Amino acid sequence: MKIKGKSWRSIWIDEATSSVVVIDQTKLPYHFETKVLTNYKEVAYAIKAMIVRGAPLIGVAGAYGLMLALREDPSDEFLAVAFDELNSTRPTAVNLYRALKRVFDRVKSLNYVDRFNAARVEANLILEKELSICNEIGNHGLGLIKEIWESRNALKRNEPINILTHCNAGWLATVDWGTAIAPIYKAHRSGIDIHVWVDETRPRNQGAFLTAYELKEEGVPHTLIVDNAGGYLMQNGKVDLVIVGTDRVTNSGDVCNKIGTYLKALAAHHNAVPFFVATPSSSIDWSIKDGSQIPIETRLPKEITHINGLRVDSKNSKAEIVQIQLAPTGTKAFNPAFDVTPAKFITSFITEKGIVESSKAGLKKIFTNSFDG
Amino acid sequence: MKIKGKSWRSIWIDEATSSVVVIDQTKLPYHFETKVLTNYKEVAYAIKAMIVRGAPLIGVAGAYGLMLALREDPSDEFLAVAFDELNSTRPTAVNLYRALKRVFDRVKSLNYVDRFNAARVEANLILEKELSICNEIGNHGLGLIKEIWESRNALKRNEPINILTHCNAGWLATVDWGTAIAPIYKAHRSGIDIHVWVDETRPRNQGAFLTAYELKEEGVPHTLIVDNAGGYLMQNGKVDLVIVGTDRVTNSGDVCNKIGTYLKALAAHHNAVPFFVATPSSSIDWSIKDGSQIPIETRLPKEITHINGLRVDSKNSKAEIVQIQLAPTGTKAFNPAFDVTPAKFITSFITEKGIVESSKAGLKKIFTNSFDG
Repeated sequence: MKIKGKSWRSIWIDEATSSVVVIDQTKLPYHFETKVLTNYKEVAYAIKAMIVRGAPLIGVAGAYGLMLALREDPSDEFLAVAFDELNSTRPTAVNLYRALKRVFDRVKSLNYVDRFNAARVEANLILEKELSICNEIGNHGLGLIKEIWESRNALKRNEPINILTHCNAGWLATVDWGTAIAPIYKAHRSGIDIHVWVDETRPRNQGAFLTAYELKEEGVPHTLIVDNAGGYLMQNGKVDLVIVGTDRVTNSGDVCNKIGTYLKALAAHHNAVPFFVATPSSSIDWSIKDGSQIPIETRLPKEITHINGLRVDSKNSKAEIVQIQLAPTGTKAFNPAFDVTPAKFITSFITEKGIVESSKAGLKKIFTNSFDG
Repeated sequence: MKIKGKSWRSIWIDEATSSVVVIDQTKLPYHFETKVLTNYKEVAYAIKAMIVRGAPLIGVAGAYGLMLALREDPSDEFLAVAFDELNSTRPTAVNLYRALKRVFDRVKSLNYVDRFNAARVEANLILEKELSICNEIGNHGLGLIKEIWESRNALKRNEPINILTHCNAGWLATVDWGTAIAPIYKAHRSGIDIHVWVDETRPRNQGAFLTAYELKEEGVPHTLIVDNAGGYLMQNGKVDLVIVGTDRVTNSGDVCNKIGTYLKALAAHHNAVPFFVATPSSSIDWSIKDGSQIPIETRLPKEITHINGLRVDSKNSKAEIVQIQLAPTGTKAFNPAFDVTPAKFITSFITEKGIVESSKAGLKKIFTNSFDG
């Protein structure tokens, strides 16, 4: 999608050096910088420090990380070490393990000399697959939005469609298009009058820092709100639908996503607002039934007690990113990064294969092979 | 309650000058400063700018504001102007209007020369009444906590009682003790093992800035969380009860409180966590039945897009409060300050007259006169 009118992806290979290049998401929305990752440890750090984040993107980044490891040393021993290190960077999204496993399985029986190239091809395939999945999620979600738009037009109601989203499940969280935001981009491009309520998404403010940035650069009308405000908006008829992404979906349809998603799902449920989860098949964990089995990452307390932002120094009108403290010195904080929304609070999944019920039966209907395999 | 071991109230009269003195809550938790208010316009500004905040405290401050107006000019005309200006500072809490009305009614039939002194006596009575209400809410809430504590001891479960609270309904929001926090202080002082989950409470961070500060100074164990985390904690059995304050309660038991309260009430409901609202009778609006009739204040977008905090400059180890920007330049934001939690999601009210059901019948049982009057 676009930044200052130019099209970008969130990750790519520099063909000349076979290094991995990413957009440094810790600098957004204030500075647009790319970062070249030349070995697997740099990739592991980039995932851990959330220079790259978003379940689909960390899957792709992990795959490229393993590729870089194999360039350095294609041995079985090194492959195993790099796999473990990359896999341990973040525990919740299933995409990371799955992408690593896919590259691992592709190369493990090959001669050492062939491994790097094979990994590169496989990682590129993973990237292309994520890209096409997001495109398809966008198309299916667009269908949903179109339906609402047409019924609204039939009633001659001249109002935008208000969509609430939590965290960032836009193109920066994937390779391009996004998951939850893909339908929004497609709807906007097809002339539907869309307005997005952007949850700021504490503590890391991915909504304020990334979703608002993406939407601004693509020209999609949007308004920033605090995470506390979604219930009020739904109670007052200001939200037509909610679309969020996911880090892991169980085979029974429970959804693990950014902390706070569950609270929005409850409010949507009580106010009869449709609540959709944009779900690439790469985020479905077929081995888990119950959401309580998903490991929830706990991050540093400092993400709550401190925050980064732009300081405009009026004296010399120079702007710099600074960190400030937001609580009494020494305040203890607890920082779980995700929560689980039970399937019953989800209207439907928007997948690359279509819209399905948030249940085992629903998922089974379109992902037959995964259930069998 | 205590700051650095010394007892304070949030507001008092300087006897020598008859000026009003308050703790400047916009400087906490970093700087403890008091502010002398010498005329009603300064009081109006202090309420509007949230130098003083919290429904009970702005009632008391408003009463003192009218007193200061009468010192300046005791005429009917000036009284009316000052009344309107003070009353328009913040729309949601009913305490403000009620306290202003009480002083107004007390002085309106008096000679001009007697008005200031009468207003002073009346405002002092309002303050003393709020104080005793908070003390009683504390005692009744302590009873609730004691019950849980004793049943836990009977089961030999050696864990603290985990209480979640939203915003600041502590002594800084009242005159002393607080509403929601009063039972917590009393439980802590009586040796019950208490731990408080403090919602940071975006956008103004009253939890992080004020509740965490109060609890730290009183030595009550607590942990700061983002507003998104409460649902996760309740799902995982980490919250034994929720206590919040209120800005206005309808006669049918709907509760208007800081934005985000509704989301926590929904989560408590779905996880069978008792959800209590500490309700001084001064916050009950007997004239309103339905929560949708309560005017919800919308505050400036800048409260969302920018934030104040402490910057520690490592170069010269000087700490200063600075403001930083938290969203792309030009981002639109919407900032409703309160939401309404329907009575059905509230377990009970903790009032100065005891614990009652969150319904018209419940309120009527203990506040007979108010219903009749």
